[in-house]
This record gives sequence, structure tokens and C-alpha cells, in this order.
Amino acid sequence: MKRAFLLLFILLFNISEVFSQQRLRDLDIEIGVLPTGSMNAITDVEGVKVGHSSLIKGDSVRTGVTAILPHGGNIFQQKVPAAIYIGNGFGKLAGSSQVQELGNLETPIILTNTLNVTTAMDAVIKYTLNQDGNENVYSVNAVVGETNDGFLNDIRGQHLTNEDMLTAIENATTENTEEGNVGAGMGTVAFGFKGGVGTASRKLPESLGGYTLGVLVQSNFGGVLEIAGAPVGRELQQFSFSDRLMNNADGSCMIVVATDAPLDSRNLERLAKRAFLGIAKTGGIVSNGSGDYVIAFSTSEKVRVPYRVEGDTQSLEVVPNDLMSPLFMAAIEATEEAILNSLFMAETTKGHHGTIEALPMEKVLPVLREYGVLRD
Amino acid sequence: MKRAFLLLFILLFNISEVFSQQRLRDLDIEIGVLPTGSMNAITDVEGVKVGHSSLIKGDSVRTGVTAILPHGGNIFQQKVPAAIYIGNGFGKLAGSSQVQELGNLETPIILTNTLNVTTAMDAVIKYTLNQDGNENVYSVNAVVGETNDGFLNDIRGQHLTNEDMLTAIENATTENTEEGNVGAGMGTVAFGFKGGVGTASRKLPESLGGYTLGVLVQSNFGGVLEIAGAPVGRELQQFSFSDRLMNNADGSCMIVVATDAPLDSRNLERLAKRAFLGIAKTGGIVSNGSGDYVIAFSTSEKVRVPYRVEGDTQSLEVVPNDLMSPLFMAAIEATEEAILNSLFMAETTKGHHGTIEALPMEKVLPVLREYGVLRD
Amino acid sequence: MKRAFLLLFILLFNISEVFSQQRLRDLDIEIGVLPTGSMNAITDVEGVKVGHSSLIKGDSVRTGVTAILPHGGNIFQQKVPAAIYIGNGFGKLAGSSQVQELGNLETPIILTNTLNVTTAMDAVIKYTLNQDGNENVYSVNAVVGETNDGFLNDIRGQHLTNEDMLTAIENATTENTEEGNVGAGMGTVAFGFKGGVGTASRKLPESLGGYTLGVLVQSNFGGVLEIAGAPVGRELQQFSFSDRLMNNADGSCMIVVATDAPLDSRNLERLAKRAFLGIAKTGGIVSNGSGDYVIAFSTSEKVRVPYRVEGDTQSLEVVPNDLMSPLFMAAIEATEEAILNSLFMAETTKGHHGTIEALPMEKVLPVLREYGVLRD
Amino acid sequence: MKRAFLLLFILLFNISEVFSQQRLRDLDIEIGVLPTGSMNAITDVEGVKVGHSSLIKGDSVRTGVTAILPHGGNIFQQKVPAAIYIGNGFGKLAGSSQVQELGNLETPIILTNTLNVTTAMDAVIKYTLNQDGNENVYSVNAVVGETNDGFLNDIRGQHLTNEDMLTAIENATTENTEEGNVGAGMGTVAFGFKGGVGTASRKLPESLGGYTLGVLVQSNFGGVLEIAGAPVGRELQQFSFSDRLMNNADGSCMIVVATDAPLDSRNLERLAKRAFLGIAKTGGIVSNGSGDYVIAFSTSEKVRVPYRVEGDTQSLEVVPNDLMSPLFMAAIEATEEAILNSLFMAETTKGHHGTIEALPMEKVLPVLREYGVLRD
Repeated sequence: MKRAFLLLFILLFNISEVFSQQRLRDLDIEIGVLPTGSMNAITDVEGVKVGHSSLIKGDSVRTGVTAILPHGGNIFQQKVPAAIYIGNGFGKLAGSSQVQELGNLETPIILTNTLNVTTAMDAVIKYTLNQDGNENVYSVNAVVGETNDGFLNDIRGQHLTNEDMLTAIENATTENTEEGNVGAGMGTVAFGFKGGVGTASRKLPESLGGYTLGVLVQSNFGGVLEIAGAPVGRELQQFSFSDRLMNNADGSCMIVVATDAPLDSRNLERLAKRAFLGIAKTGGIVSNGSGDYVIAFSTSEKVRVPYRVEGDTQSLEVVPNDLMSPLFMAAIEATEEAILNSLFMAETTKGHHGTIEALPMEKVLPVLREYGVLRD
Repeated sequence: MKRAFLLLFILLFNISEVFSQQRLRDLDIEIGVLPTGSMNAITDVEGVKVGHSSLIKGDSVRTGVTAILPHGGNIFQQKVPAAIYIGNGFGKLAGSSQVQELGNLETPIILTNTLNVTTAMDAVIKYTLNQDGNENVYSVNAVVGETNDGFLNDIRGQHLTNEDMLTAIENATTENTEEGNVGAGMGTVAFGFKGGVGTASRKLPESLGGYTLGVLVQSNFGGVLEIAGAPVGRELQQFSFSDRLMNNADGSCMIVVATDAPLDSRNLERLAKRAFLGIAKTGGIVSNGSGDYVIAFSTSEKVRVPYRVEGDTQSLEVVPNDLMSPLFMAAIEATEEAILNSLFMAETTKGHHGTIEALPMEKVLPVLREYGVLRD
Repeated sequence: MKRAFLLLFILLFNISEVFSQQRLRDLDIEIGVLPTGSMNAITDVEGVKVGHSSLIKGDSVRTGVTAILPHGGNIFQQKVPAAIYIGNGFGKLAGSSQVQELGNLETPIILTNTLNVTTAMDAVIKYTLNQDGNENVYSVNAVVGETNDGFLNDIRGQHLTNEDMLTAIENATTENTEEGNVGAGMGTVAFGFKGGVGTASRKLPESLGGYTLGVLVQSNFGGVLEIAGAPVGRELQQFSFSDRLMNNADGSCMIVVATDAPLDSRNLERLAKRAFLGIAKTGGIVSNGSGDYVIAFSTSEKVRVPYRVEGDTQSLEVVPNDLMSPLFMAAIEATEEAILNSLFMAETTKGHHGTIEALPMEKVLPVLREYGVLRD
Repeated sequence: MKRAFLLLFILLFNISEVFSQQRLRDLDIEIGVLPTGSMNAITDVEGVKVGHSSLIKGDSVRTGVTAILPHGGNIFQQKVPAAIYIGNGFGKLAGSSQVQELGNLETPIILTNTLNVTTAMDAVIKYTLNQDGNENVYSVNAVVGETNDGFLNDIRGQHLTNEDMLTAIENATTENTEEGNVGAGMGTVAFGFKGGVGTASRKLPESLGGYTLGVLVQSNFGGVLEIAGAPVGRELQQFSFSDRLMNNADGSCMIVVATDAPLDSRNLERLAKRAFLGIAKTGGIVSNGSGDYVIAFSTSEKVRVPYRVEGDTQSLEVVPNDLMSPLFMAAIEATEEAILNSLFMAETTKGHHGTIEALPMEKVLPVLREYGVLRD
């Protein structure tokens, strides 16, 4: 009876208009067992800044840029310990080998579309070369991630400019960040629905260290969607993992993990690996064609890496191995929730090759109720 | 009303006796979207053999051995392509570097307890040296995995013998395998409940290659249990990820993936990585103290590696990258289901340091109903 | 007496003019025990093409581009199996994660200076997008290596253009390649002397497979130079490995290994690792600031990777593990010789921050005689 | 004339008796440019202890054990930061994944023969379980390396016992260590000559940190021998890299690097990679059949890892990246010299399958003179 009514409701109204985008928590959906930070965003990690620059032009350009800055200072001069975990390397992430070798990050992280990676790199290099204090810098390791928005966006047109990249950096703020169709998430597709940018955070209880960990994702991958455990993709019969064509340019999930826990690069790499597990919990399968990368960094002053270390050794204070597990848990939970937020906040988009619908709430919410995720 | 009745039922009978161990499918719980093989076991992959040897002695010895053979012939002479993915390396897996370097497996895989790894290695080495045709063998790469059953088992006593190891190999059969409290799963604990051996399989539709993929696990790890997406651990308030003591010797999940798809070692490694994702779907967090390893091999004759290759090159036939995704999906699903089967089939066990309860079905089933996993 | 005469000779003539650049073999210096290919160049591997584009402008621009093409066809459509070994990751190599994941190479390899990597990537992407047959390509994994020529070149000026990159590709030929001050080697410095591009090859005897293996290097690193075992750096007291400043932007050796042996990506990775050993034999120490990468690929049709594999499996014919050692030896020898050729063929260069002398033959040859490398 | 005399000398006396074993430095052969420690041994690193146990029985047993202890205390309770670099993984090194994951070493390192690895592991596990203070230890990561001494030793007999392993540990001393035919080097073969245990060290000038770095090797591999750059293998026409049979059980070089520089596990891994380069300088090719592993650890109290860290973080003091290069140089030089010492100190040995000659000094010294390594 309720379903019949809903169907009627759908027929009468354009229901996708009626449900405005909401985050998971706004719908009282909780992921995991740990508390969130105050904004439930990567910017809950003190000092972290996020900025976007979105590009919509005509019928075919739907793309953008998202910049994540580990702190507000000169990052090249005050590098942060960092690590990269490669879930599936069918992607164009720039800068991975130097981060892995030296264990640090020296630029803002830029996320954008596959064929504008070079634009972003070039902008980051110029940005760094031109920063005050960097006059003698001859080498810059730009870290730029991407996913392929070629369905909604005329990606072969490489429409983003250096300006767009710098705008995203300049827009960066420690405030809450927009999600869904914004920045690097403007043209992405996840589980066959409109994907985008999403974020979430966890704040560990004081007894577990009291650290904050935040995640930001650019979701653009396939699988069989699960929402808080409910098999939404299966119920909606919307999934795809067999298409050969799909496998070659599709896919990809960029994940950025920030924490104020003082971690060295080895434990940041272990943390990054756990974020990868968060993909699985949303039903992602990390398909052949996916470029799934996790970049993790610590903002703690206790592990900061100055460009020029004074003296012969550097003093650090780090979380030991056997206190890492709560942070692992936080990374899994926040990644799962960030991916779901990216879907919940994304909007139906018409672009280059057609239209991608936002998550159809009129169908999804009933499934969530059926599976006990939502209670009446 | 139904719940009230159930409660009554629980009070009248010792319900944990009433529910005898059943696999997930016997309870009509389905994992994922792909069909299973006929036995829903790793032995659905043609030629694969599994054998156990269990050791129960007095109040304190609860341990055992599980052997997985990729085929019934002389494995040293007819090696199989193989790969190992290390989810978290806090473990004692023997043989990993050679498998990773050469891309093949030359012995049965043995799973046992942490402090009997050397016993298993020694048995496998002697077994191989003494096999007909191996008279001139001077080097054997025994692949032995382990988890720590030190709560239920007097692990410091190192009670297993070479005999026990050989018995497991000799017992190996292509039939369906026992699960739960058997072999290497005799003394293990997962999510705070009795863990054990579990298995599952997937059979791809012909359009996706028609391949069979099977998984066998030895579950012994922590996290917040989820069953087919239902947050059982959270609902039962049974989870732990913060205990320092826990983090140092606990944990571990050994996963063996077999397939008849003709895969080279590179794609087997990618496949192994997906099995790792299956852990996440059960709520595992791959804690600091966990030794989580996946060993994947192909049984296909098209990629078999003879000890002595005739001629200057070897002919192979392999699945190309862009047909891998369905196998990835199969590995994730089968791993999730194998872990859950290990829990569902395990029985309450009293051992060295106390008693570990089997999954309390009287509490679990209501949660599964609440979350739509079970329907009336 | 002979030395006194030489000294006189040096005083009378500008001896660095007298000795014109010669390759090692022209001086009858032999490296290793294996025979070379007919040109002793990477282009001895059938089908491999190399092209350069050099840029000299005013007093400060000394840089360039070198392109290596695995074959003359559409590389995106006919990918070659490939691997990358990272000796020291303090560099900006683009494309590594996809090569490592998928085991193949889909573009020409470009070598250039550090701050023009993005230019090269962009050119390769456009080149590939615009190739006949690539109209539906949405993702291109440009493989671009670099070393930092910031001493001789105004690297911060980023003087190379897309045109320069395309010119190098267009110039590519299967003929012998120039060495020393050419292309990506125009502004490089090795062991404190002028470095550059160098190449060498080995041809295995038929009994060892008869394969050809060629190496091309862009040398730009430090250590204590050894020439065919003679401790030239020590004798000339020219070495440096302690300077902090040096460690942050200097260094780097890009190595490209081509072979017609039918190798899969796993064995190509092992081969690449051996080329890394060749650096050591020239006295290189792979310093902290060095970006040392080896890219190895096979040109054999037996392992070619079409963009779209027809059917469900791909047939291959590969060299088995136990026939790899002669190829390993060839890679070590050819890399050592290619690095030395790069030094022997380079010329004294005045540039942005000063002048870098070519290897001073008037001092080097006596050392080589003293150490039995040259005989009278 | 001198040569004629030498020839006469050789004819008159059994010259291989006349030349007693001497280290490189005793013959005034210097490797590299850095000064050695006072003993030119791994035990120059303060606190490091080395012990051997050798087994010679009848005609066929020629094997043994070498133990390296990072310090004299309870290593399980006071772990040291450590890393393992795998040069070629055709070997049976035990314990690698845990060292790589956790970044530390918790037991003595044992080197022995391939088929007694399990004996060594078992002994180390029991040794650790039984140490005072380890009563509650349930998991021990024994690090055991090996090479295959199956030519001189009846390796299939697995003749070493737990006692032999413990004897090596008990014998361990901070004094200078024996080299050549001792402990794990008793039955090894390198470059076709008798190999064995070798050691060397470097002491950095105060301006470069003043650190000491020591290396111990168990040499058992092939290639074309070079001594301080002189092509001895080529001149003596003794080299082999093509034999298929050779490729399957031969080979291997175990390298242990100790330093008092306070390094974290990431920089220890980079250091270990440089030791690998030292193999190349002796003419090693890291053949397919070789198991070449480097284990590096730091003895510095500034980075010591207690089993139970007090408090929430651990304070460290580490060498920054940009001061690593001198240590890299030291690792390369000391490894080269340790390998050569192992050859120079080894003695002709008759064993299971025949006799392996020590380096024939009557032939080698003339070559060294010809190539300027030795001066009259």
C-alpha cells in the first residue's frame, strides 16, 4: 500500500526534485561506531584547507578541480609526512614515487580529470616556484590525482586551465567543504549514479588518542552499491562489472586522508591501506579499469619535515604501532561515509554523452527501510 | 509478538544447542550477486584438494592443520602460477618472497598455528624431498600460513608434530571440506566469537568466462562484525579494536584463493588484493596485530609451470587485464562468504585460557531479521 | 718519462680539443664479457626508434628531449609488455603506477628535464589522442622520465615546448643514435663531469637465446667514477656525496632497457632491477637526491598486448625464469657501458650557472693505463 | 722476469699452501674512499655481536650457523628498527613480512643452509620464549636467512640441530669475527671459488655524522668476479651464468647491515638497497636462482623500539633524508669489501660432491698487479 502511494507520488511530482540533496547523517544514517568530527569533514583536521573550482560550459563541459592543502603555510618549506597506497594503478596519479621514497608531501594535492593532470601539475609547479621563499627551488613534486569524467565531460578537450587550478588553491578554506557536483567531482559517475566529491571525519575518544581523521573522496567507480550494508545496487538491479569497454577508461576513486595524529610515513602507508578497505564497504570492487589511490598525510607539528633540517638529526614524536588500530578503524569508516556522501550530495547531470541520474532517493530510501538502515 | 515468542523459546531451551551449525546458504543468506559453485567450496575448483588434521588434548590443546593442494600431482614438478598479497604483515607466513619473485607455488599450502609454522615447513620440505621424482631437489619453498590460536590453545607448547602435518596432506580430498572447528581453525577466534575454517566459491556465467573461483579462510581476527551488511557487532555491542594487549599477538586472517581461470602471477596478485577487500565487508579492520595474507593460484593447465621447461620459451594462454573484473568480484564475494561460513560453522570451545562462544544465533538471527537479511 | 711527455703535450696543446669524443669501444675499452649488437646501441633491438630534440638558447638554455619508441606502429593500439623499477624515487617519472599495474607501455617514452615533464606529458597525450585509430581514446598513460639539468640550464624557465617534444618523436629513427650533449642529455652532469645520453647493447649467443638487449641512459648523477673498474674518481680526487645542497635537486639516472626477448612484465621488472646494478659499476651511489628509474620493455610480437584482445584469452610465448640470467648479465653490462658512453661522448658545456667540463681525457687515459684498462 | 720467477716458485711449492688466507687490507687492497672502523668488521658497530657454529662431519657435512645480535640485551623486549630489501627473492628468508610491516627486528638474525632454516627458526623461537621476561610472549618473528651449500654439504640430510643454532647465539661476541670457512659460510661457493662469511665496516668522518656502519655477508653466488675493479673472473676465464641446472638451487647472498646511525625503518630500507649495489661491484649478477636479501638495522638508542611503549607517543631522533648519502656510500663500500673478504679468507674445501678451490692467489695476484690494484 505504502509502495503504491509512493509510486503515485513519483508520478505526480518530479520526485528527484522533491528530495533535495542531503548528507547521510541528515537522513539519520550512521556509518560505523566511532563519533564524527564537528563538521564531519576532512577540514575537521585542524589546518587542512579544501578549495574547489568547477567548470560548466555549454552542453559538454562538466569538470573541475579540488585542492587539498595540509596546512596554510608554505608546504614546500614545511613538508608533511605522507604516504600513498595504490589500490589499483590504472590511473595517472602524479608524484607517487617521490612521496613513497621520501615519505613526505611538498605541495597542495590537486584532484581533477584524467586529461588535465598535466595542467594541474604545471599549475602546482609554477605556484610553488613562485611562492615567497622558494626562489631557489629547482624541483617540485606535484601530487595530482584524477578520475576520468569522460562520459559527462568532453575530456578530450582538456578544458581546464592553469587558472582553474590556482583558483581551487586560492579558494581553499578550513570551513566545511561542498560535496557532490563540485570541483573534481563535477563530472564523475559512481555505481552508475552521479558521483562527486564527498567527505567525512572521525574523532577518536581521548582514551584512544583523541585524534581527528578526515577523508575526502572523488568518487568515479563501479561495483554493486551498498549503503550502510543495505544491498541497494542488487535491489535496484543496477550494477555492472563485465563490460569490456567499461574496463578501459572508467573507474577510479581518489581518496585523501588527513589526520592530526603524529604518524611517520610507514604508519601513514598502513593507514592509507585501510582507507582502501572503505571502498569495499560501499560495494566497490576496484575493477581492472579503476585507478584507486589513497594519499594520507599527518598535519601534526611533531612530525613536520622542514625543507632544511637544522643539525644532524631530527626529533620526532610518533604514534607507536600498537596504538594504530583505532586510527585504522577511523579511516575505514570515514572513507565509507565520504563515498556515500559524495553520492547522496550529487545531482542529476546532463553532459557530453548523456545524462547521469543522481541516486534515486525514491527508490533508495525504501530499500534502506527494508534493510533496517532507516527506521520510521 | 514474534519476538516475545522467540524470547520464550530461548528461555525454555538452551537455544545455542538447538541451532546446530549451518552455513550461510542453509539459512538462506546470500552474499553478493554471483552464483556459487556446486559445493560452494574451494574444492569446486577442479583438482583442488583440502585436508585437515585436528588436535584436541586435555583442557589446553585446541589446534590443528589444514592443507590445500592445487592439484593431485607432484606440485614441485608441476608448479602452479601463484601470488601473495600481504594485507598486514604482522604474521609469520613462510615462503612469500619466492612466490612473489618467481610467480609460482611448488608445495601444498599449509595453514596452522603461529608457533608450529616451523613444524609445518619442516614437514612440507621432507614431504617434497621424499616424493618420487624429487631425488635431486635441494631447495624447497614451503608455503605455510598461520594465525595465533593462543587463547584457546597452549600455543607455547608447540604441540603439533610433523605427523600431524603429513596427515593433513594425506587427508586432502577434492570433496567438500569441513568448516568451523577443524584443522587450522580448531582454536581460532574471530570478532570475539569462535572462528575457524570457512570456504565458499563462485562460478562465473559463461559470458564472463565461465571460470570457477574458490576461497578458503582461517579466521582469527577482530573488528565489528557485519553479516551480509547487517551490523551485528554494533547491535550486540561486541567489538574491540583498542586494546594494546590485543594488538600484539592477536588477529590474522589467512586466505587462499584458487581459480581455474588461466591467470599469470601479476593478475593473480591483483586477484589476491581483492580477496583482502572481502575482509572489510565482514567488518574486519586489519588491525595492527593482524597477519593478513592472501595466497592465490591458478590450476589451469594453460599456465602450469613445469620444473624444467622444455625448449627456450614457454607457451601460455592467459586472461587479459580487461576481463579480470568479474574474477575480482568473485574473489570479494567468496572471501566474505567464506569468513562468515567459518563463524557460522564454528562451535563454542573451552580451551587453555577460557571459553569462546560460537556466534550466538539466538541473538544474531533477530538482528539479521531486523536488517532485512533474513525474511520470514 | 712517458708522463712527462704527456704533460708537455698537454701544455702545448689544448688537449681537450685534441681528444675528440669517442665511445668506449673506439678506445678499445671493453665492458663485461658479452658481445655487443652491431651498433652497440638500443636501436640494435629491432624496431626500436630513438629521436632527439635539443635546445640551446643564449647563455642559459641547455636542455632537450629524447624519445624512445618501442616500435614504429601505433603504440597505444599495440602496447608492449613493460615494467618499471624504482631505484630511488626522488624524481618525477610520470606513468609508473599504470605500467606496474597493467604490465604494459602504451606511449613513446620521453626523457627531458624535471620542470618540463608536464610539457612532455601533454605532448604525448595530444600525440596519442590525435593518432589515427585513437579517436575513442579517453585515457593515456604518458611515460615521461627526467633528470634535473638546473646547473647548466635555466630550468625554472621551462623552456621546452610541446613542439620540441613532438620533434623528438618525429626525429625517431632505427639508426644509430647520437650520444653525449644531445636531447635530454644536453644539460646533464654526471660524477661532476658533463653527462648526457649514452647507449649500448648486448647480443646473447644463440645458445643463450640469441636475444638482443639495448640500453639508453640519461646520466645526471654523482658518486665516485669508475671506468671499467679503474677508480678514476678516486685518482682524480673528484667526488662528492656529502653536500646537503646537492642532495635535494641533483642526481638522477633514467635508464631505458629494450629487448627482443619475449618477456612478461614480471621478468621485465626483474630485468630492470639488474640495470640498476649497472649504475653501481660506474661508481654511482644512488644518492638521496637521485631519481633513478629503469623502464624495461619487450618488443617481441610473442608478447605484444593489443588494446582490444580478441577472444577470452591471449596466447603468449615467454622466456621461463630459469633462462633469465644471461639477460640479467646483458642488462648490467649494457647499462654500465651506456653510462660510460654518455660521459665519453659528452662535451664541455658552458651554461646557466657556469661551465661543466667534459671528462678530461688527458687525465683519464693515464689512469686507465695505470689500471690496465688500456694497454699500450 | 718477475713473472718467470713466480712461475718457478709455483712449481716448486704448492703455492696454495704458501699463501695463507689474508683479508683484503692485509694485502694493501683498498675498496672505496671511506675509512674503515677499527676492526673493519660488523662488530665495529657498538653492541653488535656475532657468533658461529660450524659443522664438519665425515666427507659430506660442511655447514654451519652464524648469528648476528643487534645488542646484548633481550632483543624481543628491546627491538631495533630494521628493514629488509629483497634483491632477488629465490630464497627462504624467514620473517621478512613482519619486519617490513612493523619496521623492527625482535630476534637475533640467524644465517644457515637452506634446508635447516626451520631448525634455526625453531631454535630462535624457543630461545625467545624461554628468555627471562618473555613468559607472556605468544608470537615470535624469527629472522633466518640462508644460502644453499648443497654442493659441499649433504644438505638434504639437514644435519644442523637446535643445539647448533643456540651455540652460535651463545658464542656471539663483540670481538672481531672469523671469516671464510666458518659458521654459515662453511660450505658456500662464490664465483666458482670457495665463498664464506666476510665482514667489513666504514666509519664516517665527523663532518658526515661520524657514524659507523658494518656489514656481514654469507657469499654463495655467481657472476664474473671483480676485485677492486680488476676483472679477475674474465682473466681467469672462470664464470658461469648460463647453466640451467645452476639456476635452480644455486646462488644467494645474505647481507646484514648494522649501523649506529639513528635511522627509521624507511631509511634503513633505502640503506639496505644500497648494500645490494655492493654485490654488483664484485661482479655478481643476482642470477635467477639467487636468493639475495639485505637485512639492515640500527643499534642507536635514539630509535630503539620497546615491546611496550609507555604513553601515547614515542620520541625519536632520526637522521633526515638529506644526510643519508654518506651512509649509502658506506653500505656499498662495506658490502663490496665484505664479499671480497669472504673469498680471500675462505679455504679450499672437499665435501659432498667434490672440491671447491679457494681463490687461487697465485693467479689472482698477478691479475691484480696487471690491473693496478696491487703495486709493487
